[in-house]
Amino acid sequence: MGKNLTKRSEDYSKWYNELVIKADLAENSGVRGCMVIKPYGFAIWEKMQAGLDNMFKETGHQNAYFPLFIPKSYLSKEASHVEGFAKECAVVTHYRLKNAEDGSGIIVDEEAKLEEELIIRPTSETIIWDTFRRWVQSYRDLPLLINQWANVVRWEMRTRLFLRTAEFLWQEGHTAHATEQEAIDEAELILKIYSQFAEEFMAVPVIRGTKTESERFAGAVVTYCIEALMQDGKALQSGTSHVLGQNFAKAFDVKFANKEGQQDYVWATSWGVSTRLMGALIMTHSDDNGLVLPPKLAPIQVVIVPIYKGMDQLEAITDKVGPLVKSLRAEGIAVKYDDRDTHKPGFKFNEYELKGVPVRIAIGPRDLDNGTIEIARRDTLEKSTIQIDSAVEEVKRLLDDIQKSLFQKAYDYREANITEVDSYDEFKEVLEEKGGFISAHWDGTAETEEKIKNETKATIRCIPLGVDAVPGKCMVTGNPSAQRVLFARAY
Amino acid sequence: MGKNLTKRSEDYSKWYNELVIKADLAENSGVRGCMVIKPYGFAIWEKMQAGLDNMFKETGHQNAYFPLFIPKSYLSKEASHVEGFAKECAVVTHYRLKNAEDGSGIIVDEEAKLEEELIIRPTSETIIWDTFRRWVQSYRDLPLLINQWANVVRWEMRTRLFLRTAEFLWQEGHTAHATEQEAIDEAELILKIYSQFAEEFMAVPVIRGTKTESERFAGAVVTYCIEALMQDGKALQSGTSHVLGQNFAKAFDVKFANKEGQQDYVWATSWGVSTRLMGALIMTHSDDNGLVLPPKLAPIQVVIVPIYKGMDQLEAITDKVGPLVKSLRAEGIAVKYDDRDTHKPGFKFNEYELKGVPVRIAIGPRDLDNGTIEIARRDTLEKSTIQIDSAVEEVKRLLDDIQKSLFQKAYDYREANITEVDSYDEFKEVLEEKGGFISAHWDGTAETEEKIKNETKATIRCIPLGVDAVPGKCMVTGNPSAQRVLFARAY
Repeated sequence: MGKNLTKRSEDYSKWYNELVIKADLAENSGVRGCMVIKPYGFAIWEKMQAGLDNMFKETGHQNAYFPLFIPKSYLSKEASHVEGFAKECAVVTHYRLKNAEDGSGIIVDEEAKLEEELIIRPTSETIIWDTFRRWVQSYRDLPLLINQWANVVRWEMRTRLFLRTAEFLWQEGHTAHATEQEAIDEAELILKIYSQFAEEFMAVPVIRGTKTESERFAGAVVTYCIEALMQDGKALQSGTSHVLGQNFAKAFDVKFANKEGQQDYVWATSWGVSTRLMGALIMTHSDDNGLVLPPKLAPIQVVIVPIYKGMDQLEAITDKVGPLVKSLRAEGIAVKYDDRDTHKPGFKFNEYELKGVPVRIAIGPRDLDNGTIEIARRDTLEKSTIQIDSAVEEVKRLLDDIQKSLFQKAYDYREANITEVDSYDEFKEVLEEKGGFISAHWDGTAETEEKIKNETKATIRCIPLGVDAVPGKCMVTGNPSAQRVLFARAY
Repeated sequence: MGKNLTKRSEDYSKWYNELVIKADLAENSGVRGCMVIKPYGFAIWEKMQAGLDNMFKETGHQNAYFPLFIPKSYLSKEASHVEGFAKECAVVTHYRLKNAEDGSGIIVDEEAKLEEELIIRPTSETIIWDTFRRWVQSYRDLPLLINQWANVVRWEMRTRLFLRTAEFLWQEGHTAHATEQEAIDEAELILKIYSQFAEEFMAVPVIRGTKTESERFAGAVVTYCIEALMQDGKALQSGTSHVLGQNFAKAFDVKFANKEGQQDYVWATSWGVSTRLMGALIMTHSDDNGLVLPPKLAPIQVVIVPIYKGMDQLEAITDKVGPLVKSLRAEGIAVKYDDRDTHKPGFKFNEYELKGVPVRIAIGPRDLDNGTIEIARRDTLEKSTIQIDSAVEEVKRLLDDIQKSLFQKAYDYREANITEVDSYDEFKEVLEEKGGFISAHWDGTAETEEKIKNETKATIRCIPLGVDAVPGKCMVTGNPSAQRVLFARAY
């Protein structure tokens, strides 16, 4: 009956892997580095997709679909872009298999070799900007606000379910604008949408900032990001939004006639979040009993478990539960009545706890007599007995409260784990003993950043936005620093 | 202002290609055989997805996601399956690029050669059944009713937008059952869902049937299909649902303990529809003026075009249109008010005709005086002037009527183009002069089927279901035939 889940305090990493598998979210496949997203995990991802897709559409974006394959020559057109992606890509070289002549099985048909190799998209800037060239002639064609939900492949050597897999699912936005300012506004709008989604749907507090030059997306001028803090004190980059300047327009020769009739290169952004968000969601809220899901993303928000002996009792309970289920559904609440006769209530309680269902209702024969139900919330594990007549109101209140509490708890944890330090020794000490975000002065050079990374494995997660930039001295070199930046070890 | 669209009677195939491009549905990409699905085309596909996804979920199916890559050895495990798919697949052989030493650019890094080649999924039976082995132990784990929305790749040599592309989007259902009968029931349920979707959403009448052995899916025991008839008299296979028997369970060793505790192989189905449905939708209803969309799948159901001189008139019209737009939206109707000042009404009329918007409303200064609007339906191009107060009711009536009329028109055409023949000469004559479905007796052998195909390019589209099987004599060999089957030239 037990969940046999490793405790977070024992081995956080092991806890995570076990939880993903035991809660039926995902598993490793027979293909190196590629996961299978199981129905329960996929149902959560579908809710994320729906939430984000709605936000994109409400801000004027449209979905489209571009090829999975990128000709090698396209990838090469933007110099820093290819530098960033060529080292970890899947390459298609042939288009046919055949039976081996010696009867040993099927082999690659060497006669079916492609003239030019095709790369499985690691990201789609190149194929999309090759297309945008045909779509943009004049300022009237701008802005182009395009999004794509797709699978992408980056040949990672060390993979972990949801956090880093060779193939993953994501959305990638690609926009084209007439001016630099419009492109910056777009990238910032998306950063706002991402933070709002993370905080309001996922209940994951995030810090907004920009990446340092060495952490920027390959081909970007500015990379905005949202960074979240996991329960083990490590940071997780949860979404990025890039201003690409005119780099891709120049590489793919995408020009437009402006209002004055002059030809100019188009300004670009790109932005994405991926199934990695599943990792952030799981790691932020879950506990030693299993998954904890915010109600807004829970495929099952309320589960009702009957407690009975014999079919007569079950029938009486079912009669009572019917109208409740109906009333809850009428409120748009996803409710499941689990009347399986093959499993005991204790088994079911355990299962829904493991799967993070926010609210559990139990109803037994005594409840029938008293007109009551037992209602339990997953986040705090608190239980109470209430009148069945007030169930709908109580469930609504609880779902709302759980959503808010999860965010508040994660927020408090995050705030308690941002430490300001002023010396490199203190930095190392906090990093080892406490973890979390460390706010420190840095001299702005890639050399210092690299040195810190090599010596401590901590990276600059972001230069935070929306804070007063107070100057100081770099904790390592003593050189001037414009403002504190946030360091952390990261996923 | 003209659409410059080739007439169907001149060159049907050219008309189709032009229409797909001019109506902004899709275009060819820089990658051989791969298309870009443009926002307007993708919006229609999203509506198809939503409709189907809902029907799948209502019948107990769940979505999941499986890897894009299939190890070569997996593909080889089911003999007829590999035979069907090995000849047209994209093969990944390497996982890294590098800079050429001579500075000529980036090249494949030969040191990063995969030990085992990976095939881009042409369909996912093999990778999914490799997974099902881990998911199924007992009859309690069955049925497994899984669906996946995904991209797949089949290296077609001759491609056409939506109809046949190297990469396409689809859904593929994969289910596992305890008994053969359950698997058959599932495949038939899906056939029913597919027909219902085609007829009720797409307004495309379909004939349900089974495929002959030579036309069956590679690895199937029975292939059910729906077949539609295009305006040029050619058939288009629009969806298939396969009973796979225990073939894949045996190939991947997927056994379960039945209620009696005995081990048995699991029974399987698989089924899919793809972006090919877009081709069926376009070709069934559209005319020489452009696309004609059934209201249930139209991204814009009603467009309102103001006819004005000067900003004062536009403002007055906009004031009048505001409440109408609101009332239409309240009824769940997708309405667009096109007040762009950069284009004339005639240009807009033309554009929405080309894009198949079902209902167009025009409102000018005289309408303001009279409290009227002009309302036009795309399918018949009929116009009428009505009171604006009755606009909402009239739009609802029109949308409903267009949806039904499109189906009825396509149905009448289809019925008028099924010809019964009893001799091979007559068969050839009808095929050349009329086209459409030809209902004829066939002796049930692959040899006769092959002979007819080679001599006439017509194939057996299906052995129709739900008709009385009246025996007869094969039109070619004179041998006994159990029932008439449907022949056609096909896409």
